[in-house]
Amino acid sequence: MRIPLDRQSSTPLYQQLVAFLQAQIEAGAIPPDTRLPASRELAGSLGISRLTVTNAYAELEALGLVVSRAGSGTYVAYPLVPPPDTNGQMEGHWPLWQEDLRYRMYPPTQNDFRQRRQENQNPTLISFRDGLGSVNLFALDEFRKTMQMVLRRDGAAALGYGDYTSGGYPGLREVIAHILSNQGIPTHADHVLITSGSQQAISLVARLLLQRGDTVLVESPTYGAGLDLFRSLGARVVGVPMDEEGMLMDKLETALRTTHPRLIYTIPTFQNPTGRCMCTPRRREMIALANHYNVPILEDDFVGDLRYEGRAQPALKALDGNGTVIYVNTFSKVLVPGLRIGYLVADGPVYDQLLIHKWLNDQSTSELLQRALEAYITVGRYQAHLRRVCQVYRARRDGMLAALQRYMPEGTTWSRPQGGLFIWLQLPQQMAAADLLPLAQAQGVTFAPGAFYFPDEDGFDYIRLNFTTQTPERIETGIKRLAKAIREQMTRIGN
Amino acid sequence: MRIPLDRQSSTPLYQQLVAFLQAQIEAGAIPPDTRLPASRELAGSLGISRLTVTNAYAELEALGLVVSRAGSGTYVAYPLVPPPDTNGQMEGHWPLWQEDLRYRMYPPTQNDFRQRRQENQNPTLISFRDGLGSVNLFALDEFRKTMQMVLRRDGAAALGYGDYTSGGYPGLREVIAHILSNQGIPTHADHVLITSGSQQAISLVARLLLQRGDTVLVESPTYGAGLDLFRSLGARVVGVPMDEEGMLMDKLETALRTTHPRLIYTIPTFQNPTGRCMCTPRRREMIALANHYNVPILEDDFVGDLRYEGRAQPALKALDGNGTVIYVNTFSKVLVPGLRIGYLVADGPVYDQLLIHKWLNDQSTSELLQRALEAYITVGRYQAHLRRVCQVYRARRDGMLAALQRYMPEGTTWSRPQGGLFIWLQLPQQMAAADLLPLAQAQGVTFAPGAFYFPDEDGFDYIRLNFTTQTPERIETGIKRLAKAIREQMTRIGN
Repeated sequence: MRIPLDRQSSTPLYQQLVAFLQAQIEAGAIPPDTRLPASRELAGSLGISRLTVTNAYAELEALGLVVSRAGSGTYVAYPLVPPPDTNGQMEGHWPLWQEDLRYRMYPPTQNDFRQRRQENQNPTLISFRDGLGSVNLFALDEFRKTMQMVLRRDGAAALGYGDYTSGGYPGLREVIAHILSNQGIPTHADHVLITSGSQQAISLVARLLLQRGDTVLVESPTYGAGLDLFRSLGARVVGVPMDEEGMLMDKLETALRTTHPRLIYTIPTFQNPTGRCMCTPRRREMIALANHYNVPILEDDFVGDLRYEGRAQPALKALDGNGTVIYVNTFSKVLVPGLRIGYLVADGPVYDQLLIHKWLNDQSTSELLQRALEAYITVGRYQAHLRRVCQVYRARRDGMLAALQRYMPEGTTWSRPQGGLFIWLQLPQQMAAADLLPLAQAQGVTFAPGAFYFPDEDGFDYIRLNFTTQTPERIETGIKRLAKAIREQMTRIGN
Repeated sequence: MRIPLDRQSSTPLYQQLVAFLQAQIEAGAIPPDTRLPASRELAGSLGISRLTVTNAYAELEALGLVVSRAGSGTYVAYPLVPPPDTNGQMEGHWPLWQEDLRYRMYPPTQNDFRQRRQENQNPTLISFRDGLGSVNLFALDEFRKTMQMVLRRDGAAALGYGDYTSGGYPGLREVIAHILSNQGIPTHADHVLITSGSQQAISLVARLLLQRGDTVLVESPTYGAGLDLFRSLGARVVGVPMDEEGMLMDKLETALRTTHPRLIYTIPTFQNPTGRCMCTPRRREMIALANHYNVPILEDDFVGDLRYEGRAQPALKALDGNGTVIYVNTFSKVLVPGLRIGYLVADGPVYDQLLIHKWLNDQSTSELLQRALEAYITVGRYQAHLRRVCQVYRARRDGMLAALQRYMPEGTTWSRPQGGLFIWLQLPQQMAAADLLPLAQAQGVTFAPGAFYFPDEDGFDYIRLNFTTQTPERIETGIKRLAKAIREQMTRIGN
């Protein structure tokens, strides 16, 4: 694609790119459903930075002129003529404001929802797709008894709003502060805010700190629901490349200098989806950079204590001297997802603002569940449960690694994570995960396509495998099926 | 205040007002903490509409130049020098981005939090402040047994995320659709979305439909946490005046025509805080106007079925032919607050968008609580509970009305609501509720000051009294104390 760019102009290059493409698309010169060149390719051919291209594409997407499809690329959108009604509700005409909503796209979430709905039809499927740990390790009987005890002990007090002018049920905040301090993150119950899972914690921080048009820096790849959350606020998401030791600090500094972000979102430990850990020197450097550029860090530590081997790195929050880091964690991964209890830790004026945003968002997290969780974990159960979970997950990880070794065709590569939930796998022969998925489903196995996790159109040949939710036997069977599907697709590509 | 306005100019009057005041404030000509004239007063003296003035003040507030203090007025803000650290956390310096956060003000919430924290110190206080019903009417033992049953019956399934690609636990959505259809709001489980209380439902809708700078129309007065929620999104809140039959339709039409709002937020039945019901012809007219101006209606029906006398009006949603109305309700007011389960009903493309926003906001509402609630309310308990609650609340309302009649000094007036939770009371002699509050607290009673509920600086002499949370004996005692405090303040004013 030949695009005239004026490097002397005061108009930034990415805006020139936007203006050119917008004119072409609106004139119909580039018809709907045309795939735009990959950003890497276009950047190369124009001799500009790839960031310039991804920024331009993001802007075009915000204008509704293009649509990025996970794992596939960026396509020219259809003009604003309503597509046929597909949600199976009322026939007929919706108000115009409703018709406009059809064009708000959240590709990771929409694709994930569509694929899950399809997979829900097939109960024999072995799923490596989920983002959570195993529900079956939870001491259900103990929890049931605890719930009884709390309802008997606290009566109506367990069924009110609680004191929402503080950050949640005081007893639970104290236990959390205690657990964190044990793990080298010294804090106090007054700095802990209980949330409805860590997603809400991330959402509160994003909503407080980001406005439409603001930039947020993330690892590339990163948590897909984070990407869509930031996009839903109208933020521009800029991915910073990683290596095995986490985000690259020189790239981070460049991005800080050139994009003036309002937030850095990072998962330093057993990152989602790669499973990587940021090394300690980079952790210190990230905080120094954030301080220098006056940018807050949102540290998502969702599986930070699920370590099966190797030496622990300090949380960013533990290295934070002045309130730069907002720390987010959850009980959904280690204990039980269905309670939907997470929390954040913040120091300084931001804490009071988050408290108000929590109230405005959903008033308070269920007082009953907070009290039940407090009663359950106080009695030393958290550490014991964590030990047991780590033991089981380590075995499952080893089982999946062994199965991969045994069954995967040559050219497939994968990570060997020291903790967390995920193995990150690159398919052979630049095979698209989107093409593999239906074959895998037909074999009776499924996974999360890697493109969900990239802020741009990268990662089409990666997949994420959760090794914690299936038994070792089902892991072996599932990987065998997956390998079969990959070989099948290799044959297809070969032809 | 003499302000030069050019009625021939193409610059709107409110912008001229903003420009003038901004220049004066920035030059120091109007020093910090100066109270600006009340909007009514300024509008009168300049011969312009009051809406023009409130719009200008809202804009100045968005610019950080003025601060509106509930019940007191609009004041010139202090320039951006950090106030001393008051949150009792770390000593020392916060990052600049944190210092900036100190200036984000949410007066209803901040004042409510401050007053509640103070009142929490005094356990003998009789509180008429709350926004919820009585927790003590809930059949706690039955619920405990239900919870046991669900944990035994469903095991790990009750502790997962559930299927978040649909709108919540299917059984619960079916019960809700059934209850609503019984109440004349025919709907289907597929159009029901479970949320963490109705606040989250309102928050999801607001977040989807409002962007910074957009206008939302509300009844004046209205729900305070709604006001702050809209403000937290950068929206401009415009109040539409009401009479005893709800929002005035001619004022609504003017506001629709002149402010181009993106949303109408209304509580048509037993409105918060006034307890008023919109009459049926206005309900129909509101829908017609919303359709004509292509604006969605968010109907908050939080106590719609708590009727103690009189004839029921149809919900707006029941009159909605084409997806204009998004309906929000909760189990927090009738059943039990601490579960934090509410829901919305929406038709058309907006439903799928809300589903995604729910996921991005907090993934899902606790599967355990959804299943427990479903098991609890299916067995015909909801209607029985509702009858019992209505009986108790009717008696408490009558008790409060009788006590007001008996004790209140002349000049005090109050509403006689046919349902809901609140009596809306106007103090005598233009007494400021903010001045009365400390005297009332000293007498051992408290209430919600009316200014919390006004989008502008109105309502300083109103208070909201919740008649459902105290026993009849405590209601009598509390009103007696309140009357004593009012007489005390009358004497002070008299001097």
